[in-house]
Formats: sequence, C-alpha cells, structure tokens
Amino acid sequence: MDLSEEDLLSAIARVLSGAGPEVVVGVGDDAAVVAPGAGQLVLTTDAMVEGTHFSLATTSARDLGHKAIVVNVSDIAAMAASPRFALCALTLSDSVDAAWTIELLGGMREACNEYALWLVGGNLAAGPQVSVAVTVTGEVAPGRAVKRSGARPGDRIVVTGSLGGSAAGLRVAHRGGPLKEGDRPLLEAHFRPVARVGEAAVLSQNEATAMIDVSDGLSLDLSRVCVAAGVGARIRMADIPVAAGATLEEALGGGEDYELLATLPDAEAVTRASVEIKQSFGVALTDIGEIVEGAAVIVTDGASERALEPTGWDHFAAPS
Amino acid sequence: MDLSEEDLLSAIARVLSGAGPEVVVGVGDDAAVVAPGAGQLVLTTDAMVEGTHFSLATTSARDLGHKAIVVNVSDIAAMAASPRFALCALTLSDSVDAAWTIELLGGMREACNEYALWLVGGNLAAGPQVSVAVTVTGEVAPGRAVKRSGARPGDRIVVTGSLGGSAAGLRVAHRGGPLKEGDRPLLEAHFRPVARVGEAAVLSQNEATAMIDVSDGLSLDLSRVCVAAGVGARIRMADIPVAAGATLEEALGGGEDYELLATLPDAEAVTRASVEIKQSFGVALTDIGEIVEGAAVIVTDGASERALEPTGWDHFAAPS
Repeated sequence: MDLSEEDLLSAIARVLSGAGPEVVVGVGDDAAVVAPGAGQLVLTTDAMVEGTHFSLATTSARDLGHKAIVVNVSDIAAMAASPRFALCALTLSDSVDAAWTIELLGGMREACNEYALWLVGGNLAAGPQVSVAVTVTGEVAPGRAVKRSGARPGDRIVVTGSLGGSAAGLRVAHRGGPLKEGDRPLLEAHFRPVARVGEAAVLSQNEATAMIDVSDGLSLDLSRVCVAAGVGARIRMADIPVAAGATLEEALGGGEDYELLATLPDAEAVTRASVEIKQSFGVALTDIGEIVEGAAVIVTDGASERALEPTGWDHFAAPS
Repeated sequence: MDLSEEDLLSAIARVLSGAGPEVVVGVGDDAAVVAPGAGQLVLTTDAMVEGTHFSLATTSARDLGHKAIVVNVSDIAAMAASPRFALCALTLSDSVDAAWTIELLGGMREACNEYALWLVGGNLAAGPQVSVAVTVTGEVAPGRAVKRSGARPGDRIVVTGSLGGSAAGLRVAHRGGPLKEGDRPLLEAHFRPVARVGEAAVLSQNEATAMIDVSDGLSLDLSRVCVAAGVGARIRMADIPVAAGATLEEALGGGEDYELLATLPDAEAVTRASVEIKQSFGVALTDIGEIVEGAAVIVTDGASERALEPTGWDHFAAPS
C-alpha cells in the first residue's frame, strides 16, 4: 500500500463525506451513530472475497465496490424492507493501491446513492487477499417483513427479470477476446447487478407469502423456500425466464442474478403485481409454477417431469 | 471443508438458536429482523484476518470467535452505547473444518452472552485465508454518544485498566515453551480481551467529553482524539498504567488492549468515576495527564519532555 492507514482513512472520509441529517456520527469515530427508523430494524452482511467471488484481473474496483453494496441491498429487498445504512470491513492486499481503494469506495458510494442509503462506517485491514465485507441495515414496518417460510400449497411462484445472465456474463469475461453481439447485457448482469427494491415492495403489497433473492441459482434458492415452508413446488421448464445468451443450466444453477423469487396467493395477485412492476420499473414478472404439498421440487417439460436437485453455488463443494 | 454449505448453515443455526423476543427473524433468512431500539442506532464493523490479526497455529477457534465479538463491542462501548445485535461474515479456508467452525461460533455466542447481545445473522464464503468480519449494532440515548472530538483544553486524560498486556501476551505466545510466572494474565489480555461497556457508561455519566478504545496503542489513539478535537495533550510517563510484564513501548504502541481512553472535565469527575469504576468492576481508572492547547502530544518525565510520535498499529506500514 502506498499510503499509511491514517492517510487512507482521511482519503476515505473525504470520498464518503456528504452524509445527511440522519447521520449523527459518520465515518471516523469508533462507531457510527444514526437516527433510529420508525419500523423494525433489518440487518444483513455479505462478503466478496478475491479468488472466490471476483478476480482483480477481470473486475474493476468501481464495479466491485458497487456490487458489494448491491448484493446486500438485494438481501434487504428480499425481506420487503428499505435499505438505510451501510458499513464496510475492507481487507486490502499488496496487489492494490490507494487509487484502487478510492475507486472501490467510489463504486460503493455510487450504489449507495442509487439506492438511497448512507455508507456510515468501516474498517481497514491488510491481508493476503482483497475482501470486501459489507453490512447493510434496513427498515420495515412492524410485521411486514416477508420471510422464506410463508409459502403455502396453491401459491403461485413468480420471478422478476431473467435468470442466468450473471453466470453467462462471467463466462463471457473468462472467454476474453472481442465482444460479440449480445455480450454486453450479460457482462452488465454479472458486474453491475440490480437489487429489486421497488419490485419487492410491490410484491409485498400484493400479499407475497414468501420471498428470497436468487443469489445462488433458482434450483437452490427455490429449494430453500420449500425447506423453510415445509412444502414442495412444481415449475414449468418452458416458463423459466432464461436471459438472452444464457443457458437453461446457467438459469437454474448459475446464481448471482439477484432477481426476486416470490410466492403470491393467486393468479389475480400475479396479474396485479406483474402490471405494476412492468409499468413502474419496466421489469417482467413471470409465473413459473406453483407451491404444492410435499417436499420435492418438480420441473415439468410437456409430458415428462423430473425432480430438480437443489444444486447451485456451494462455497464448500469439492471442485468437480 | 467436510460439510456442504447447506449442512454447515444448519449446524450454525443450531449453535445460534435461543434468540429472544427482540429477534423477529434470526439466522436463516435473507436478512435478520429485530425490534428497533428506543434510542439512536450505533453501528460498527471490524474484521480479524488470518496472518494479520491471528494465526491458526496459536489462536484457538473459541478464543478467535470470542475476540471477534469483543473488539466490536469495545467500539460500541467507546461511544458510551450498549451493544444489541451482531452479524458475522465468515470466510473459511481448507485449513479449517466444521468442528473448528462450530467452536468459532461457540466463542462468538459465549461473548454475546457475556455482553447481552444476539448474534442474528451471518454469511459464509470460502477463501484462501480465514477471515471473521463482525458487525455489532448498539443503542444510545439521543445525543448521549461520546465522540472523539469533544476533548477541550483543561480536561483530564484517563485510561481504564492497564496497557501493553495484549502485546506482551502475543510476545509470550510467540516465544512458546513452558509458561512462566506472570505469563497467564498476559495471554488472557491478548486472547480474551475485555470490552469496557459498564466502565464507559460510568465515564459518560461523569461528563466524559471524548472517548476512544485503545485498539492501536496509546500513542496513536490519543493522537486521534487530539486530531479530532484540534487540541494537544501532556501525559506523564510515570503515570501510564503499564501492565505487569509488559514494557513501556508495548503500552504506548502495542495496541489491542481495548481499554478506554477518555477525557473528563476536572479532577472531581476523575475521582467520582474512579471510585465508581473500582467499586462496580474492580478496574482501575488512572489520570495520565491533561488536554492542552496546540496539536502536540507531549510526554513528560520529571524535568525533561518529548513529543510522542503517533505510532502504533498501522496495517499498511512497510515492514521494518
């Protein structure tokens, strides 16, 4: 590192200046102090680790900072809550310098501006690999958080946007070479994912019984909803919204799409939510099947059907 | 790792079960949901990184988990706030297994029990090194947070407990061999530090104008208070409470003691706080000097005096 910790902390405080009246004590003291919310407090944390979630060779500092915030905002959205404050525990290696770090924080601030939250604190450490551990707090009206466990037999299963784009984007980045037709949206999906905060609010208003963000792939995340609720699911292969340029396998198991997977009580709720999400955000909402009794997740494909294995992004899976 | 991520998450949920009525949604959903506090929300994050803050060879999983919580609780205490909830973003390497991880979480839960906070969420990732990034939230009555910037010329400078014990404990651990007389308290100071939550409340009640926890050494942390407040300080070398078995250098620059450094308006406040802290917690409070005009931190030693360099734990210092 080309700056001392004190110098870097000063630089960071400058990048992060501009906090609003809700921030009583911001970056630079032992802890941040912020105004309490009116509702319940929502808390989540997620880390991006070099070599596991990103490589310095293919990921820009700005995209990394942006994504580190967005993946946490997505978890807040999946509870139907609003994001409010962010903190970051940053581990920096000798591979990065002060300019890279300021860019990273610039990306974080950009994402915080987009989703209207404040970056109020952080911590710096040195280590052998870069790691960006972010915590985001949110707020939700008492009793209005949408959990995974509320899905009931008969509920419709819906998903926002399209799936597999992030995994396909990573494949494009690894392929290298000149960009082809259709590559750019896939790269955007991987490096600049979008958290569905407004869409989650619409789903909640339309009586969503369960919600999760698709961070580890449709198969695994749908199975998590089913396990939490003690139910099964039947989804139609043909209706899975596979991103243009992605494969079905990438849509089922790729992960990192940060779309919302939700269950709604009936077809009317799906129609209402679908129209409102399309009108307000230009985003599709697709009905892919229904919650059923039992524990299996079944995929139907015309006449045949098969059980969907809950596979997806497992951080601890042995390399195959 | 000898368990899949899903299996490990299930094991973790079992270790962390037992959350109270304040926890609306605990571990296992996209985010935790907790009851809001009555006061302002206090937020801090701090990471412990393998190779930088600990080595797997000398640190037990249980001590590591315990300390990862305590260092964050210490930051909450330094604002004169009460800790309430904790989150952990855990990065695990191939060097550790499920049993180690459960022990780590056991140490976290132990610390959470000691300081009356709930571990409500977390995240697991694989990486080349173990890293434990913890976020702790706290609560403080509106306007009652004690910042670093409030120190005024004429204020007394006090410190709780003794300094240098943690650095001396690390030295003892690296030395290895059989334990000698006096080693054990030093090892405790390093591996099982104590956060001064109750002591901070007493200092706040006695009109503390500024407070910081001594995480990076007295020299650096006192200079941070002086910079934040735009003042200088004069401290008496002979009055610095050096831990038995530690050197003066370890007390000034070793760090990780997690004692409180505070400024109080006058000698009467020091006496009152000192008596109360000794009676309630059996901990000494030592007057080591006073805040003065200017910007320098001066150490006096009988007739002579010298400027104290703000050196201490700098994560990005070039190895000397």
